[in-house]
Amino acid sequence: MDFKLQVTHYFKNLQNQICTALEQADGLGKFKEDVWERPEGGGGRSRVMELGNVIEKGGVNFSAVEGFLPPVIAKALGLEVAHFFATGVSIVMHPNNPNVPIIHMNVRYFETKRDINDTEIVAAWFGGGIDLTPHYIDKSQAAWFHQQLQTVCNDFNANYYPEFKQWADDYFFIKHRNETRGVGGIFFDRLQQTEDVSLQNRFEFVQAVGNAFAPIYTNLIALNKDKTYRSEQKQWQNIRRGRYVEFNLVYDKGTKFGLDTNGRIESILMSLPHNASWPYNFIPQAQSKEEETLQLLKKGVDWVNY
Amino acid sequence: MDFKLQVTHYFKNLQNQICTALEQADGLGKFKEDVWERPEGGGGRSRVMELGNVIEKGGVNFSAVEGFLPPVIAKALGLEVAHFFATGVSIVMHPNNPNVPIIHMNVRYFETKRDINDTEIVAAWFGGGIDLTPHYIDKSQAAWFHQQLQTVCNDFNANYYPEFKQWADDYFFIKHRNETRGVGGIFFDRLQQTEDVSLQNRFEFVQAVGNAFAPIYTNLIALNKDKTYRSEQKQWQNIRRGRYVEFNLVYDKGTKFGLDTNGRIESILMSLPHNASWPYNFIPQAQSKEEETLQLLKKGVDWVNY
Repeated sequence: MDFKLQVTHYFKNLQNQICTALEQADGLGKFKEDVWERPEGGGGRSRVMELGNVIEKGGVNFSAVEGFLPPVIAKALGLEVAHFFATGVSIVMHPNNPNVPIIHMNVRYFETKRDINDTEIVAAWFGGGIDLTPHYIDKSQAAWFHQQLQTVCNDFNANYYPEFKQWADDYFFIKHRNETRGVGGIFFDRLQQTEDVSLQNRFEFVQAVGNAFAPIYTNLIALNKDKTYRSEQKQWQNIRRGRYVEFNLVYDKGTKFGLDTNGRIESILMSLPHNASWPYNFIPQAQSKEEETLQLLKKGVDWVNY
Repeated sequence: MDFKLQVTHYFKNLQNQICTALEQADGLGKFKEDVWERPEGGGGRSRVMELGNVIEKGGVNFSAVEGFLPPVIAKALGLEVAHFFATGVSIVMHPNNPNVPIIHMNVRYFETKRDINDTEIVAAWFGGGIDLTPHYIDKSQAAWFHQQLQTVCNDFNANYYPEFKQWADDYFFIKHRNETRGVGGIFFDRLQQTEDVSLQNRFEFVQAVGNAFAPIYTNLIALNKDKTYRSEQKQWQNIRRGRYVEFNLVYDKGTKFGLDTNGRIESILMSLPHNASWPYNFIPQAQSKEEETLQLLKKGVDWVNY
């Protein structure tokens, strides 16, 4: 089977598996599916759960799109004309309970050819990552989360975790707040074939990342979903969700690409929460759990050994 | 008195007058003042009202800042080095009652000199505008609002209203939704001195716009603040506020400039509402008031004669 079809097939199955696992963990909510087509080529299968038992709003999107790249981007690849194919799975989960963290995952594959009917692939790479945004940072859970990602990475290359962890710190950063979005995770892009690493090996790494998502998040759900909370904690959750909105609308490259290229808007913006809040100049009380979380939202924390 | 000091003086007074008028119209809420300094020069006086009787969150910000322009911008003005001075008033009001519209106003003055101690001004201009974002469009109120702005404009130049109305339609447009932000209003920028029009006349026009704000908005408050509404209308309000957030974080140039130049973040983002909502793929019922509003969110509506 054609490599890109293998990858597409895996991503579709991954979407199915993750949706099943999340419905099971939620116990009430069901994913609503929207299948869409892109006029320029390809399409997607969006699945969104709303007002579940655990998940207030969450999306698990699969897409596989193709078309000619804008001339500027083609030229940057050294080509007159470039025909691309891109497929991936994107996930964002906003839970009801402020003790359950927000999570994001993306895994994607991209290839370009000189023309639509060419067989030769000019460039092919994988990208993706998983990162966690707790409303309240539980240090031992943040450490556990990073250890899981480190274990996934170490099966492939001992350099992956430190490199991709730093990449996540740098990427998921809200510059105008001088805050990281959450406790980070791993982020990687343009993982191509090299002399030492085959594209097949890259694919296996991305599969390992994709397969890690459901066990990691369902465990974090199980640990936190029944914890009680006060209404002020719900307010704090809405403030943190406001920061999530700020990151996604101001900085996130995937969102920007989607908005600029006329993507299906409700699939792109499924990442935005059901509710968010911007009270003016909210400053947490000294020594509160909210203040403690704020102080941990910085780059370079060695979570694995925290 | 130095021209820029006259302008600054007017803007400071305008902030005072508007805050007084809004506190009176609200009947309960009071503005909280934060005075801030900008390390690179100048500063501002932010005033925010929260959880008032009419206003849920609203800001009336005055600022007067100065400094050297980034080299790229200086070169675009044909200068090696450029020292700028900018002052203005910015307002956004998010009301409690979904029948009261959101309003935005900005008036500003900008000048540049070759160096900090130069007396010669290389370029000087005014910019600004007022625009209205009803959660539910009341056509006769939208017409009245535009008539008020037309009257202000016509005292100066019969071309102003049609030109600045179209500018607002084009500027306050949420491209990825293919919706205008609201019913528009007027928007103008770089109003410089010409052979026919003095900078003093530009200043008088901007004063007329600034002075029109309080009577216009307090009238819209009086007309709508006591109307009853259902909880579904509050939900719709939060969705419309979500669109407001999308516009301000994705497109608004003032917000972008503020975030890029390390401005005081809570003053810049005072434009964001206390609460906003993004339910997945919300589609209003056919023939509902919500659908009617959506259908009117387009460019080129001749509101004055509606």
